[in-house]
Amino acid sequence: MKDENSNVNLLLGKSRKKIDAIDEKIVALLSERQGIVENVIEIKQANNLPVFHPAREEDLISKRRLQAEALGLDPNFLEDIYRTIIRRSRVEQSATMATQGVRSGAVVLIVGGKGHMGRYFADCFTDAGYEVRILGREDWHDVDRLCAGVDLAILSVPIDQTPAIAHKLAPHLSADAVLSDLTSIKEAPVKAMMEAHSGPVVGIHPLFGSTTSTLDKQIIVATPGRDESACQWVLDQFTSWGSILLTSDAREHDEIMNIVQALRHFATFAFGRFLSQKRANLSRTLEFSSPIYRLELGMVGRLFAQDPSMYYEIIAASSERLELLKEYLVSMEESIEIIEKGDKSDFQDEFQNIARWFGPFSDQAMRESTYMINKLIERF
Amino acid sequence: MKDENSNVNLLLGKSRKKIDAIDEKIVALLSERQGIVENVIEIKQANNLPVFHPAREEDLISKRRLQAEALGLDPNFLEDIYRTIIRRSRVEQSATMATQGVRSGAVVLIVGGKGHMGRYFADCFTDAGYEVRILGREDWHDVDRLCAGVDLAILSVPIDQTPAIAHKLAPHLSADAVLSDLTSIKEAPVKAMMEAHSGPVVGIHPLFGSTTSTLDKQIIVATPGRDESACQWVLDQFTSWGSILLTSDAREHDEIMNIVQALRHFATFAFGRFLSQKRANLSRTLEFSSPIYRLELGMVGRLFAQDPSMYYEIIAASSERLELLKEYLVSMEESIEIIEKGDKSDFQDEFQNIARWFGPFSDQAMRESTYMINKLIERF
Repeated sequence: MKDENSNVNLLLGKSRKKIDAIDEKIVALLSERQGIVENVIEIKQANNLPVFHPAREEDLISKRRLQAEALGLDPNFLEDIYRTIIRRSRVEQSATMATQGVRSGAVVLIVGGKGHMGRYFADCFTDAGYEVRILGREDWHDVDRLCAGVDLAILSVPIDQTPAIAHKLAPHLSADAVLSDLTSIKEAPVKAMMEAHSGPVVGIHPLFGSTTSTLDKQIIVATPGRDESACQWVLDQFTSWGSILLTSDAREHDEIMNIVQALRHFATFAFGRFLSQKRANLSRTLEFSSPIYRLELGMVGRLFAQDPSMYYEIIAASSERLELLKEYLVSMEESIEIIEKGDKSDFQDEFQNIARWFGPFSDQAMRESTYMINKLIERF
Repeated sequence: MKDENSNVNLLLGKSRKKIDAIDEKIVALLSERQGIVENVIEIKQANNLPVFHPAREEDLISKRRLQAEALGLDPNFLEDIYRTIIRRSRVEQSATMATQGVRSGAVVLIVGGKGHMGRYFADCFTDAGYEVRILGREDWHDVDRLCAGVDLAILSVPIDQTPAIAHKLAPHLSADAVLSDLTSIKEAPVKAMMEAHSGPVVGIHPLFGSTTSTLDKQIIVATPGRDESACQWVLDQFTSWGSILLTSDAREHDEIMNIVQALRHFATFAFGRFLSQKRANLSRTLEFSSPIYRLELGMVGRLFAQDPSMYYEIIAASSERLELLKEYLVSMEESIEIIEKGDKSDFQDEFQNIARWFGPFSDQAMRESTYMINKLIERF
């Protein structure tokens, strides 16, 4: 039995190596293919020829389908693959096209433009034809030159430094420049910007990280400060990038974010921390995981692949947030007491009350997440 | 101008030919690859090995992503292609599986067959040609008739009742009947089944709920009790339905499930309870949500759409689990102290230690969940 097993493993190992070798060749060919496609796009653009060529695409698909059939491969499968490849070529093509900005040529100053988010938005504005300047930690000696003619100044610095930097920067801006920030709390930063700057002010909170590939369908919260009409073009710019723009006052924004960001991130951090304390056998755990647990554990693992300083800033952004965490701890203690009492019907009553509070969202969540889980199973 | 045009056309024509040649090679390689995959499936099926291997698939994807990055190809594009290829292999595999039962005609008794999971498996066995009998709460007067000729008895009753029911049922079974259960802890139930029954015993824990549409790719843990060879056909039956079968001893199973189920469900319950205590504005919160928060909140909402009694049973299944929850509370208290101290570098150190412990899983989780999030954005 042992021999038979090792024989089987040997066979499977060999097959795996063969598959890996084939896959390596496929990827190399795809890379070679992309080089040629890029070349074609260049030639076409230089000669003002249309880059898409539906007829050529259909022709290509037909050829591959025929070849697949001849080789005993499912032609629909091949078509799936080639649609993905062709869609990719199109993305390449669109990427090389100019996306005209709402106020191209305007001057955008990004303070802290060397951090992740700063660099991210610097690229966005540059690609849209703006003149982008970066004011990093070491550039303050040059602040007057950097601020000359600035139409929009964006503070992309740690939360706790935002008010001070607003005060430091504002005197160098002209009165009609828009002053804005990207921090994930809005009360203190917007207040500071209003005090420091006499011109237009709008707080911005992009609800996504710098790993996002495009701004399309990403949510951005705007907290109006002063002179909304003078700030409008900035918001229009985000909208034209495809972002979904929400408006909220600073108070409401911060209350919601206390829960959506601070509490949630803290809970995730604390869960990950406990797992590491328990030295749980992660890989064995994953083998035993339903897709939903894999997804949940993925949410925890995901946090620890990111920037600790950003998470600290979000969780510890205000004394209010710390109070919330303490309330959460007390509530959790009560939850454990409910379990410890060992009265199933008490637990069920409590559970039903919470379910009632969640209301129709529970069923919706059940539906949505079931859909997601099925996608997960399909894909992975 | 004419000359220039024909020059361009010549160049484009050449490029097209090159692309066609590359595509022909790619398709030939895909065909070769499929041949090897088919061979692997045959070997696996002949040796009763699970055909899916999620870890191997993730490994394969990671390799191709790395190669893509090295070659300047977008790794997400490559992942898309390879997910299509892998899904295809799976379709091949499922297609070759028989829907016929492994031991059609055998008699299966489901104790508690009127509950969700009991009914679910009753349907599965019936569809595969088994004679299925149900023993509900009110059927014990008829137990001898129901047990006559039974080949497999499955206990599908609440965790805390499983040991007692095992003792109540076993005297009515013939000595060669397989006795099994479906509870989500295994130590106590398997021990009780071993004491009560002198014949073959195997504990089963299906890691999914009764809302699952098929058993395909669902994980099932088997905990061998007695006479593995006599139990084998039961496990083969699950495998032939497409389930991924894992074997574990009761101790290891329960330790992993303390975390994967009890702790996780408790944390989710406690988070939902706190949200309801805070009367958070759920719908406004959702408007302000990035897809990832929506997904996370969905995981919480989802729990409250389900059966409270099932969650109570899982969380309160053993005194060990209660101890674990208390340890979790202490750990969370420490986490809050770290925040309260207000020393960012302390937090960062702690964070980095946890990140190190998570190791490569973090990056993988980041990749997987980013992929899912992008799918979510695409879909909704």
